Formats: sequence, C-alpha cells, structure tokens
Amino acid sequence: MLVKIRGIGLLTGRPIIILPKEIAKWLNVNVGERIVVNKYGEKKQIVAVVDITKIEERADFVYASDEIINYLNLKENDVVEINPAQKPLSVLYIKEKLDGKSLNYNRLFEIMKNIVNNELTEAEIAYFISSMYIRGMNKKEILSLVKAMVDVGQRIKFNYKYVLDKHCIGGIAGNRTTPIVVSIVVSAINELKLNAVIPKTSSRAISSASGTADVIELFANVEFDVDEIKRIVNRVKGCLVWGGSLGVSPADDKIIQVERLLNLDPKSQLIASILSKKISIGSNRLIIDIPYGKGAKIETKNEALKLKKMFEYTSSKFGLKTKVLITDGKQPIGNGIGPCLELIDVLKVLKNSKDKPKDLYEKSIYLATELLGLIMDKSKAQKIVEKVIKEGKAFDAFKKIIKEQKGSIKELTPSSIFSEIKAEKKGKIVEIDNRKINFIARVLGCPADKFAGIYLEKHLNEEVEKDETYAIVYAETKEKLDYGVKVFKELKPIVIK
Amino acid sequence: MLVKIRGIGLLTGRPIIILPKEIAKWLNVNVGERIVVNKYGEKKQIVAVVDITKIEERADFVYASDEIINYLNLKENDVVEINPAQKPLSVLYIKEKLDGKSLNYNRLFEIMKNIVNNELTEAEIAYFISSMYIRGMNKKEILSLVKAMVDVGQRIKFNYKYVLDKHCIGGIAGNRTTPIVVSIVVSAINELKLNAVIPKTSSRAISSASGTADVIELFANVEFDVDEIKRIVNRVKGCLVWGGSLGVSPADDKIIQVERLLNLDPKSQLIASILSKKISIGSNRLIIDIPYGKGAKIETKNEALKLKKMFEYTSSKFGLKTKVLITDGKQPIGNGIGPCLELIDVLKVLKNSKDKPKDLYEKSIYLATELLGLIMDKSKAQKIVEKVIKEGKAFDAFKKIIKEQKGSIKELTPSSIFSEIKAEKKGKIVEIDNRKINFIARVLGCPADKFAGIYLEKHLNEEVEKDETYAIVYAETKEKLDYGVKVFKELKPIVIK
Repeated sequence: MLVKIRGIGLLTGRPIIILPKEIAKWLNVNVGERIVVNKYGEKKQIVAVVDITKIEERADFVYASDEIINYLNLKENDVVEINPAQKPLSVLYIKEKLDGKSLNYNRLFEIMKNIVNNELTEAEIAYFISSMYIRGMNKKEILSLVKAMVDVGQRIKFNYKYVLDKHCIGGIAGNRTTPIVVSIVVSAINELKLNAVIPKTSSRAISSASGTADVIELFANVEFDVDEIKRIVNRVKGCLVWGGSLGVSPADDKIIQVERLLNLDPKSQLIASILSKKISIGSNRLIIDIPYGKGAKIETKNEALKLKKMFEYTSSKFGLKTKVLITDGKQPIGNGIGPCLELIDVLKVLKNSKDKPKDLYEKSIYLATELLGLIMDKSKAQKIVEKVIKEGKAFDAFKKIIKEQKGSIKELTPSSIFSEIKAEKKGKIVEIDNRKINFIARVLGCPADKFAGIYLEKHLNEEVEKDETYAIVYAETKEKLDYGVKVFKELKPIVIK
Repeated sequence: MLVKIRGIGLLTGRPIIILPKEIAKWLNVNVGERIVVNKYGEKKQIVAVVDITKIEERADFVYASDEIINYLNLKENDVVEINPAQKPLSVLYIKEKLDGKSLNYNRLFEIMKNIVNNELTEAEIAYFISSMYIRGMNKKEILSLVKAMVDVGQRIKFNYKYVLDKHCIGGIAGNRTTPIVVSIVVSAINELKLNAVIPKTSSRAISSASGTADVIELFANVEFDVDEIKRIVNRVKGCLVWGGSLGVSPADDKIIQVERLLNLDPKSQLIASILSKKISIGSNRLIIDIPYGKGAKIETKNEALKLKKMFEYTSSKFGLKTKVLITDGKQPIGNGIGPCLELIDVLKVLKNSKDKPKDLYEKSIYLATELLGLIMDKSKAQKIVEKVIKEGKAFDAFKKIIKEQKGSIKELTPSSIFSEIKAEKKGKIVEIDNRKINFIARVLGCPADKFAGIYLEKHLNEEVEKDETYAIVYAETKEKLDYGVKVFKELKPIVIK
C-alpha cells in the first residue's frame, strides 16, 4: 500500500515504523511485527518493526525513525510502499523444532539469516530459544548451528600458522585474565619469533560488571574495522578489541539479548555462540576456561565435564584445536570488580608488583602456559611465560598494544565516592557469591560508570576482625553509592561465619 | 535515575519510552524490556516499553509517548524518575514451566497479572506459550489457568436464571451463525417468557476475514461499556457486541497476539481463552461448536473429541453447563465471506428468503435448538425455533437488537469493483480450503474494507460447466482486486476435478 512518510526525528537503534491503527489493521500487522518499506518506484527496501498509533481517522501517512529515512534517502511526505514482511520460512522451522524435529544446516542457516536481517521478532526468537532449551540439540545440529552462525557473518583470515585465542564462559566477577594472557602470549611470540598471533576480540559486559572491552577502553580505543585490526595484529602480533563491530557471528548478539530475559542459556547455543566467533576470526588454537562452583554459570564438576566434551567434539570438526580447562569458580578472581578496579589489578600483575592479586596472577600464568603449550612443549611454554612476566616484557607488550590501539597508559584511581564495608563480628569468610557481587557492581553503576565497583579486601577462608573492612564499594554519585550499599547489605554477597 | 521528559507527540498504542543509549546502558535495559516511570516526588507510576536512541553524548532526557505524558500528567522538561522494572517473579515461574514443572493457581495468576499490566515482554510471553505448547498442562493446571484469567479481569453478572452463550472455535470462512442464533434465542425467550438472556460478546477478526463484531458494525454500534450492555440486555434479552472493551479476561488478547506469530494454539490456552471469557460474563449454559476437517483448526474427529472432553470437564468445574457440538468443517458455511457479504447471508436466513444459503440456515437452526435444548425439552426447543424463523420473529428480534445498539437495517451491496472467477474446465468441486479462502479475503481488504470479500456460487460436490462462474471476488480498490485475483489464481483455494 502507498503512504506518505513523516519523520519522528529519532534514531531509535533499529528501523521503526509507526502505523496509524487503520493501516495496521488493513496490513494485518501487530505491534512488534515486521513490514517492508521502499520508496515508491525504487527497489531498495528495508525491513522495519511496527508500532501502532491510535489516530482515529483513516490516515494516508506513517511515521518512520531516522534509520528508515536515512537508508531510503527520504524527505518528508515522500511516497513509500509498505507491505507486511512475508512471514519468513524460518517460522515454520522453529515450529518444527518446537515439535521435536531436528533441524538441518539449511534450516538453521535460514533462521540465522532472518535473525541477522531483523526479519524475526524477539518473540519468534524466544520460540527458537525455547525449542533448543527444551528439545536440546544433537551433535549434528550443534555442528550445523555453528556453521550457520559463521556463514551469516564475516570471516577474517590471518596469514599465520597459529592463530591463538582464549575464552572464558563467564559468570565470575573480576577474573580479568584476558589482557594479561594476551600480553604474555604476544611477548612470547616476539621473543621466540613464532609464526603466530593472538587477535583477541572481547565483548562488553552483558550481565556482569564489566567485559574486557569495557576495561581496555579506559586506556585505548577498542572499536576498529577488520582492516585496522589486521594492521594492528600484523604489527604487534595481538590486539585487545571489541568484537561487536566486526560483523562476526552477528546472529549471536540478538540471541543473547532474548536469552537473558529468562536467563536461559541452552548449552547448544552457548557452544555455538563461542565457537562461531572463534571460527569466524580464524582461530586454530584455543583454550576455553570453564569455572564451576556455587554462584557460577556451571555449578557442578559433572556439568563442566559434559560441556568440555561437547566443546572439544564440535571444535575438532572445524579444524580448531581446543583445550578446555575446568577451573575453580567459587569466588571472584582478583581484588577489583568494575572496569577501573580490574584494570588496576591487571597492571599490578603485568608489573609483577608485590601487592598483585595472587589468584589473578596465578590463573593468568596458568592460562597463558596452557595456550602456548598448544604450539610448543609445555615446559618450554612455562619457562617463557615466567621470563616475560619477570623481565617486564609482558607489560611492554601490553603498552605496545595500547599504543597501537591509539591509547596510552594513564594513572588510575577509582571514584572518590566510596564506602567501606566492615565486619559486624570476628570470623572467617565462608562465601563470596559471584552472582550477587556482579549484581551489586551493576547497581553501583558498572560498566558505564568505569570508576565504580567493588574492591575485595579479603577472599574466601580469610579471617576478619570485628569492624575490619572486608570490602569497599565505589560509585560515581552519592545516590548510586547509597543505593549500592543498601543492596549490598540486603543481599549479603559475602558471608562471615 | 532522574531525567527530563520530552514528548514525541505520538499515541503509540502502549506506553513507550525512548532512552538515549548511555541511559539504557546504565539502567541495563534493552529494546523491548520494561521500565517504571513516575513524576519526581509523586507515587503514581506507569510501566513503559523501552526503545533506544543512538544519541552519542550523555543526555539528561528521555522521549515518551503520549500514553506516559497523559497518564502521569507531564509537561515538557518535567523531571521523572525511571527505574528498570523489577523482573517480575512470573519470569521464574515461566522458567519452571519450561523445565517441566506444573504451575499452581498463584503462579498462573501472577503470570496473567503481569501480562495484563504490561510487565512481561512479547518474548517472555512467547516463552510461556512455548512451555504450554511443549509441556502441555494437566487438568488441574487448566482449571487454575481459567480461574486466573477470570480473576485478573472484570466479571459481569446478569440477574437471570439462565445466561446463555454460544461459541465456535473458529477457522471456517463465512459461518456467520451468531447473529442468527442470538436472534432466534432472543425471540424464543420473549415468546416463552423465559427467565433467560443471551448477552453475546464477539471478537473482531484475528486471522479470518471477519468476526461477528466486524459484521454487526455495518448496522450498529458494537462498543459499549458494561452498564450499557446490561441495559441493552435487560431490555431486549440479548445483544451482539464486541467483547474487547469490557475488560473480561484481558490477558487473552495479548496471548493471542503472541500465539499468532507462530500460529501456535496450545489446547490448554484455547480452552482457557474461551471459557474464561464465558465465565467472566456470567454464562451458565453454553454450546461450543468444533468444526473439523482439512483446512479447519481441528483436522481430525479424534482431535475434536479429545477437545470436547476437556471443554466439558473444565466448564463443569465452574458451574457452566456446556454442550460441545462437533460439526463439518470441510468447507466455508454460507455463500459470502467478508463483513458485508456475510451480513447479506444472515439477513436472507433471518428473513427466511428462498435464496438463503441452506447450509448457514441449517447450521443456525441446529445450534439454536441445541442451545435452547439446554434449558427446555429438545422437541419444544425445535418447535419454537422453527416458529420464530417462519413467523419472522427472529428477524424482529434482530431489528430490535440493532435498534438498541443505536443502529438500523440498511440496504447492503458489496463493492462494485469485482471480478468473476470462471471454471477452466467442466468438473466437480472437490475442495474449498478454508485457510486459503480466509487468506485471500484478507488480501482483498477484509475485515477493514467491509464491502470486500468472496462470494461462492458453488459449494463442495457441485458441478460446474467450463467458463461458468464459481466465485466472485470483491475489493474496494482496483489495486487490491488485481492483487486478490492474482493470489486466488496462485493459491487455488477451490479445486475442480
């Protein structure tokens, strides 16, 4: 149907069209569904999400967000053609999966393609996630899903024998090993003149207090296009960038957004999400860290072992050599939680300072050794890792990466608005709940407020005296601090007994 | 957090707030999620759906749709407090159901309440529907669901011994029995001075070509509030109104909207949807029509029988005497499909004209007799039904209802823009697919274009000559007609062999 366009002067983050009620009725579309828009007489089209306005009379215009206006190059009152977006076939496939059938590559590819092209609504994606969650996926389906997620996105190729990568399935507060591991590995590569790179892409925080990208941003840029990343990696042999703008496995972000509504994380999707990104970026040697324990994503060792097997099986089919490490996830790793506080920990480890957090130091050394152990003798790996840390070469590598990413190392101090949490009685720390710690850090303003967060003075099994400070909470405003302290006291993330 | 408000000058059909990116990040909310808004210092609050705008700088304002502005009585730049809507507990219950647990009344009530209050996103509702669809619901859960759906809405009470009702589960094109049955029953009530009423509420078309409300609207108002409906029913003993504005079983509309995305219709939800509405409006005698056959909602007799049992069991627990009739759903009922064409059929039956569609006439007589048979001897019911049709009393009752609903009977002619569909060869009609017929009627403009639709010159098993017209399609514009004819030829809803 033909209608005139009216702008609403807003960039809404996705193409949105607001239809007068009568037009929506005629097109038989509801809020949240999709229509296709093109300028009258032109072929270029865009899929837009429908909202409905209750104008009573029969109108001959629709409202459009700037995404549509810009993409189709429209002026106010230009005539556009609008049509209900044909129900994508993937809706039928999702129904099949709900009914218990398994899906082949072609069908999974269609679903991924429709997700990327904005042709499935959040509710339709929720149906897909439910189907995976309840029905599960067999080995073959998981392989197809990984391949489909890779195929709808960009692939990047680095011309090195070994393209190394590391990944943690998440859920542990602090735990900022990535900048340390990457710096160690980069300096080892340069020391030993290895034919290898570690082009590390990371996410921003999804439900945790911060992601590696949020942390690195304090010093340097993290958003680059593919060519820029290649240039950085060729020069330094590694990088610490945000993966979101590269277009690798683009269906994943959308799926994660819908999953978090119910905190669902079907194992098949977890595996596909991680591996599709690694494959897209051309990795061939990977370590995956699965921390387990109460309050972590994976609560039991048994679950962790099962997941390990599925990761190893699936990656092997893509020529990706993966070693899965099952680690202790009972408490946060490092002292700081929140971008600035975590980066302070990272620098202490890289500088090998006396007051470095021991757990973060040891875990980083362990991961770096295991990763390098995939391309050389383990004892040799161990030696080089120790050497580059002790001689400050890992820190040099970090500085080089930051410089290549157009940044510099600065003095860091957390917010001056803080409050000390003191023990009400003498005792021993028997629990530090990762989930609660992450939640409180968000309440305090993380990850957007980079100088907010939580600093742990004590770890599991340590003794505290009555009135001794065992944690400090930081916020960027008094208001957020008060709220954070209140939530801290309610949730009791740290238990003293 | 405190922000200034800016209007976008739009009534969007539901409260929408557009957050600058940085604010969304801090609140940790995504597109489609919910936040709570209140005027600073005031308690009155509203739950709004989030959209995000890509303003780059840190903004101190948000955009709001007129629903929010009006409800909170805001002026431009007023300060409002915005907070992420606490994840409703029902999200946990939905997860439980996905995990295979059954839900008790309290949990189902929470879910229904959150749906009505706009506190669950479409994707969260999709998770709930998936869980019912895959896990099913036991008898007790269905009872609880019905009660929960009733309890979150309005209940209406009529002070009569018998409150009659009829319902068809839908899917059959044409099939406009309701105005006829209601008119027959109303005139029987008046003839026999029965202590009974038939306060019939109907829906507008959801996925079919028209609903009873769309049809009656050609002559009269269909939107009344509860008091007005009571007044009409007290005077005429019946009505033909739209149920949507009464607030009975309000969760249902939202659920239906999300179900239709995947054309899912879990049996438990189908039963709860229908019975909750009947119970809310105080019915105590009900007939339900389940048409079955290829192209209908229910395809096999076995399925129909199972559904019948569930309907009868569930209604019995609410003191609602229900008789389920399993009828032939292989083809449309009546000749016309589309509001005007269906109403023409209805008038012919009510006037007992010679050229009335026989199938529609017979089915209406059957349903009316069965319904009256619930409160009197069947043979007595049969007699009175025949009498009121023959003597024109049913038609008088119809006229009275229309008059009470502020309308009048008018001359009806379908659109003058039409096209005859002619047989390409001599043969017999072996298939008329309800789904396809409904779809084509929508393409032609139904239900918004009331004078559009399809007229069937022939029914199943009738012979056609080569070049004989077996159907006529009507549209309100040439453009829609051409498109409708094209789709008709592609889909071949009527098969001649």
